[in-house]
Amino acid sequence: MIPTRADLAALDALDELAPLRALFTLPEGVIYLDGNSLGALPRATAGRVAEVVRAEWGQGLIRSWNDAGWMAMPGRVGDKIARLVGAAAGAVVVGDSTSVNIFKLLGAALAGRPGRRVIVSEARNFPTDLYIAEGLAALLERGHRLRLVEDAGIVDAIDDDVAVVMLTHVNYHTGAMHDMAAVTAAAQAKGALVLWDLAHSAGAVPVDLGGCDADLAVGCGYKFLNGGPGAPAFLYVAPRLQEAMRYPLTGWLGHAAPFAFEPGYRPAPGIAQAMVGTPPVISLAALEVGVDIALQAPMAAVRAKSVRQTGLFATLLAERCGGWGFTLASPADPARGGSQVCLAHDEAYPIMQALIGRGVIGDFRAPDIMRFGITPLYTRFVDLWDAAEALAAVMEGGEWRNPRHGVRRAVT
Amino acid sequence: MIPTRADLAALDALDELAPLRALFTLPEGVIYLDGNSLGALPRATAGRVAEVVRAEWGQGLIRSWNDAGWMAMPGRVGDKIARLVGAAAGAVVVGDSTSVNIFKLLGAALAGRPGRRVIVSEARNFPTDLYIAEGLAALLERGHRLRLVEDAGIVDAIDDDVAVVMLTHVNYHTGAMHDMAAVTAAAQAKGALVLWDLAHSAGAVPVDLGGCDADLAVGCGYKFLNGGPGAPAFLYVAPRLQEAMRYPLTGWLGHAAPFAFEPGYRPAPGIAQAMVGTPPVISLAALEVGVDIALQAPMAAVRAKSVRQTGLFATLLAERCGGWGFTLASPADPARGGSQVCLAHDEAYPIMQALIGRGVIGDFRAPDIMRFGITPLYTRFVDLWDAAEALAAVMEGGEWRNPRHGVRRAVT
Repeated sequence: MIPTRADLAALDALDELAPLRALFTLPEGVIYLDGNSLGALPRATAGRVAEVVRAEWGQGLIRSWNDAGWMAMPGRVGDKIARLVGAAAGAVVVGDSTSVNIFKLLGAALAGRPGRRVIVSEARNFPTDLYIAEGLAALLERGHRLRLVEDAGIVDAIDDDVAVVMLTHVNYHTGAMHDMAAVTAAAQAKGALVLWDLAHSAGAVPVDLGGCDADLAVGCGYKFLNGGPGAPAFLYVAPRLQEAMRYPLTGWLGHAAPFAFEPGYRPAPGIAQAMVGTPPVISLAALEVGVDIALQAPMAAVRAKSVRQTGLFATLLAERCGGWGFTLASPADPARGGSQVCLAHDEAYPIMQALIGRGVIGDFRAPDIMRFGITPLYTRFVDLWDAAEALAAVMEGGEWRNPRHGVRRAVT
Repeated sequence: MIPTRADLAALDALDELAPLRALFTLPEGVIYLDGNSLGALPRATAGRVAEVVRAEWGQGLIRSWNDAGWMAMPGRVGDKIARLVGAAAGAVVVGDSTSVNIFKLLGAALAGRPGRRVIVSEARNFPTDLYIAEGLAALLERGHRLRLVEDAGIVDAIDDDVAVVMLTHVNYHTGAMHDMAAVTAAAQAKGALVLWDLAHSAGAVPVDLGGCDADLAVGCGYKFLNGGPGAPAFLYVAPRLQEAMRYPLTGWLGHAAPFAFEPGYRPAPGIAQAMVGTPPVISLAALEVGVDIALQAPMAAVRAKSVRQTGLFATLLAERCGGWGFTLASPADPARGGSQVCLAHDEAYPIMQALIGRGVIGDFRAPDIMRFGITPLYTRFVDLWDAAEALAAVMEGGEWRNPRHGVRRAVT
């Protein structure tokens, strides 16, 4: 039976996470279903950023590196993110971009598997992951190559020549989610390391890096962690691997004694070795606010709401918009997906533009995907009903043939 | 003749740059001589950052990547920095840290000189530059090595096996400044590329990358550009080299069509190829405020004031503190130095702590350097008189034997 708007309002009334929406600033007249591209602004962020700028920087100046704890921020925020992804304290550090962090970990991983030449990944992995791997292989000139396979063929593609299996846990394009424990175990059984990209996972779905005995991971600060546009990324290295890691980027913050200004590099102990340059303090402060909110929400409740919302939204879309040639591109079983719903349509781009013109913000992913992110911290059940209605109106009125808005592109 | 405080006040009264000090927030009771480590806060920064956070992120959300010009920021701020360092529009882009940018340019430079195995640098270069080079050489496993020489021996050290000469234009430790045009010409005559680190130059001293026909450069956003703690760095690539550059970090923002999500990497045209991950918007906005102020100050006036101030400060220090075993470690001729004065002393660390306890903030650089940065945009002549007096008082009272403050460490 298709739920009514009143049914969805009733779910909102019962939702234990509903109060968290008040922790975010969301514009009037907008239904925001793009938190998997750029998370919404926490209400506390502007105040915290102003404090860092006016008091810590403006008044404390250089002294704030110690007095305001700036030097400790990459590790402190990293330890908080660790709690969101099932990692131990000291296993995560924040800094650089996801792409740069992939480079660091992939470089160290290939160095740790010197006889092996293959990086296994998915053809539909997020492109920057593949580009970084391709660039690293070209740089090394030692015959490394990418072996790109479809989702179902990953485990079979792992043989004795595989150094690293590099996968995005939740696919950006389809929302399909890998079985982290199974893939990790299969790869490790073959002597390969696994590098997980948690861009669409951290803060969105349960991740248990420790429980999976995962090797390596990276993740994004500006999606479900609500850290702000271009927020610093994070990386995870299993404590058992940290001492042996030799990262290709050997910056002064990864030195054992950065302020001794020694001419030669000596790696810092632990996760600090993975740091490179001076920490981006203002961005780190904004990210920490988002992470603190994520820590307030029990992940089991977040996941339960996410599964229910993605399932309901797919149902509503099928019911209201089923006649216009849309195909569900995200997993039919929400339990197998991340926190997004994707529709494929030949006219996905102009349709999404028209939908945005109505204040329902999702995004387009080439060539034919309309992507809707579900953020249980602030997405209401009625939003999904209203979004499905808006899409129906776009299709019924043919609005997408004359979009009211120009080209918009969203960042992953 | 030794100037009096009244003489210095008279210089302030005549200083054409004096009004710019009002564009900065500086704490009461502090003489800040550490702007070469972390520049001061511009008054406009907090408001601009709040606008980006509240309006552009909070209200515009994902739409701001286009509507608020976020995607264009790395190039827009880069073009502004280009004007400060004598570079053409399209030759500079902002993003990542100085260390990561050195890696990108050094990696591309070595690839561009495939038969050559040597990177020439200074033994006293800032350590992260050396660490990055050392790490890159180890990563490549193709026999690259660092040839570290003293300042005077650089040109003689450039032979036909040198791929890259990597120098910091103004030395962090001594303030000594290289002759960019001469070293560049000498290196190019031998077929080597030159990579300049402008960390202590951009916004501080005249730099004419175009006029020197310089090849490559990087620089820091948080020193004389006043971009905030851990601000993004920048890099410069001569337009004549850009198309041939193949950077080792091949991220999606350096792709010719980032939003086509192609599985294979195709380099973007021009300087955009040097970008990697998603731009750090909030940090970029803060940096842009600092850069805009630097563009208001004619560089000839900045340099003239800097030379005069560094010379006067060295004179005052010699006069008031000459009996306590200090040695001037920065160039005796201010015209040969950057915008800093350095004293060497065996007890430099506790002396600097005691001086900071009196509100005069410089920094310590191991093993024995007291470093004072001169920022003509906000450093007054009387500040230098007061700072020399404070150091004399520290020495006369033996305060440094019982510092009132604990360990403080400053970031480069």
